[in-house]
Amino acid sequence: MAYDDGNVFARILRGEIPCARVYEDADTIAFMDAGQVNPGHVIVATTHPCATILDLTDDQAAALFRTAARVARAVEAAFAPAGITILQANRPAGWQTVPHVHLHVLPRHADDGVGLTWPRKEPGLPALHELAARIRVE
Amino acid sequence: MAYDDGNVFARILRGEIPCARVYEDADTIAFMDAGQVNPGHVIVATTHPCATILDLTDDQAAALFRTAARVARAVEAAFAPAGITILQANRPAGWQTVPHVHLHVLPRHADDGVGLTWPRKEPGLPALHELAARIRVE
Repeated sequence: MAYDDGNVFARILRGEIPCARVYEDADTIAFMDAGQVNPGHVIVATTHPCATILDLTDDQAAALFRTAARVARAVEAAFAPAGITILQANRPAGWQTVPHVHLHVLPRHADDGVGLTWPRKEPGLPALHELAARIRVE
Repeated sequence: MAYDDGNVFARILRGEIPCARVYEDADTIAFMDAGQVNPGHVIVATTHPCATILDLTDDQAAALFRTAARVARAVEAAFAPAGITILQANRPAGWQTVPHVHLHVLPRHADDGVGLTWPRKEPGLPALHELAARIRVE
């Protein structure tokens, strides 16, 4: 996906739109999601002009989750959630709404209204090996 | 959360349970999820005895997403999904079922039956700043 620098997170990075920042380093920025699903819901975004996870270098990807773990610990300390869910969405079919790489650090609580439909099928080990043989990690 | 080394991913790491592996390095292992939500659905797990994201060192967290990005590129090449969703769940309230740090690399397709309920509220910038002030990232 070509990078469109008019997206809202690019504008936040350029200081054109305000945000409530909680952390920033050379590779990442963390700020409160304007759409708080639960209080303490933080966005961790790359500072690089990348649309999806497919566009990140190894180091940029690593930095994103290093910051996510730091933010998760801070959210844990501040809000004592029952759980924490990390979501990172790529392209609209993957639930991405802002075309700039980011992830959600979402504190979770029992009966918080957040829901997931996850239709798992168990094809068995031979079929899993056939799928695995198609995947070449480089 | 104390680490329980009887969990299924710990057993996979010890070779006690078979898996369809696609990648491994010192800090991470990637294998096909036995419960394929869509074909090409991969688990990326830490090799370290950590229950949740809160237990990871900076380097262990970084390694997890570096591998996730590599796996995502490989899944993209192999299955050409319409989107890719990354999910990382912590504690049962955060949707975690296996108490060993891992994330899902899930290829996505239109109308694939995967669903998310995401009740966002927009509290406004002053309230976001109040929430941010409680979060101390270290």
